[in-house]
Amino acid sequence: MIILGIDPGLRTTGFGVIEKQGSKLRYLASGTIKTTAGETELPPRLRIILDGVTELVRTYQPTVAAIEKVFVNVNPHSTLLLGQARGAAITALVGQDLHVAEYSPTQIKQAVVGTGKAAKAQVQDMVSRLLLLPGLPGTDAADALGVAICHANSHDALALIGTVSPQLQGLRMKRGRLV
Amino acid sequence: MIILGIDPGLRTTGFGVIEKQGSKLRYLASGTIKTTAGETELPPRLRIILDGVTELVRTYQPTVAAIEKVFVNVNPHSTLLLGQARGAAITALVGQDLHVAEYSPTQIKQAVVGTGKAAKAQVQDMVSRLLLLPGLPGTDAADALGVAICHANSHDALALIGTVSPQLQGLRMKRGRLV
Repeated sequence: MIILGIDPGLRTTGFGVIEKQGSKLRYLASGTIKTTAGETELPPRLRIILDGVTELVRTYQPTVAAIEKVFVNVNPHSTLLLGQARGAAITALVGQDLHVAEYSPTQIKQAVVGTGKAAKAQVQDMVSRLLLLPGLPGTDAADALGVAICHANSHDALALIGTVSPQLQGLRMKRGRLV
Repeated sequence: MIILGIDPGLRTTGFGVIEKQGSKLRYLASGTIKTTAGETELPPRLRIILDGVTELVRTYQPTVAAIEKVFVNVNPHSTLLLGQARGAAITALVGQDLHVAEYSPTQIKQAVVGTGKAAKAQVQDMVSRLLLLPGLPGTDAADALGVAICHANSHDALALIGTVSPQLQGLRMKRGRLV
């Protein structure tokens, strides 16, 4: 399974691609899509996000995508801009027939660091350790790799229910509970 | 020139298509893309907007698109959702290589009714008169036709400078002023 993680933003959209083989995670790529060079109008900036995400999907052929849920900003205008950038990234992903899973920053920190209240530097550090990177990724790339790791772990948890744990066999998830 | 107007929204995206021949406007189509049937997750709802807008572009082959600028909502969560829906619509348009012009509600009301403080009902009424419609369009479709009319008139104003008015010949627009 190849997972494409996205950390959306209007100026900088972070991406991270990992491969999951059994319980092992392998780093494939990470970086940022920047929309700040030259363009000031919104439509051409969303086009840069569309083209960048489309190119990532063509290059790495992910099985699934995971994107960070965004916070409402204190500045409503920024919230609107961030919403439009996130909408562009999701549209690019679903336009390539990818399923898009959404995770909150708390879920991502919990999955990567073990606590929902971790600092950005802790996320960078743990992402680097989990994926055996030679150095620290940038914050946007680290967040994108983090959401990909979060999805890999969530998938683990669900797979476990169906196949590994005998006492849970026959049980299904419904609204986040076993039934 | 065929103009596709879009009034973005997460639940309902209005659209309106008009043709401009000389100074005459002709109604081609209008309606809404609804994302409320069945889907509650955001990515599939944005996919409905993407598919709907893509289908409109394929059917009516517009020369240009015009979209309403949205207000920041009092509810920040609604602002975020609206931003994502607007981002999806713009992404669908630029993904089909269309230039997307943006107009504020005030600019649209000014162009359609003659005053930037017009009520929604006045926009519906004037859109119906200007396009010789047999009845009143719905509010979302009327707003979408309104932004298309607004773009047609803006284009008129610019065309006038270059070709019609002799005393203005040789003048150019710079930052909204004649120079």
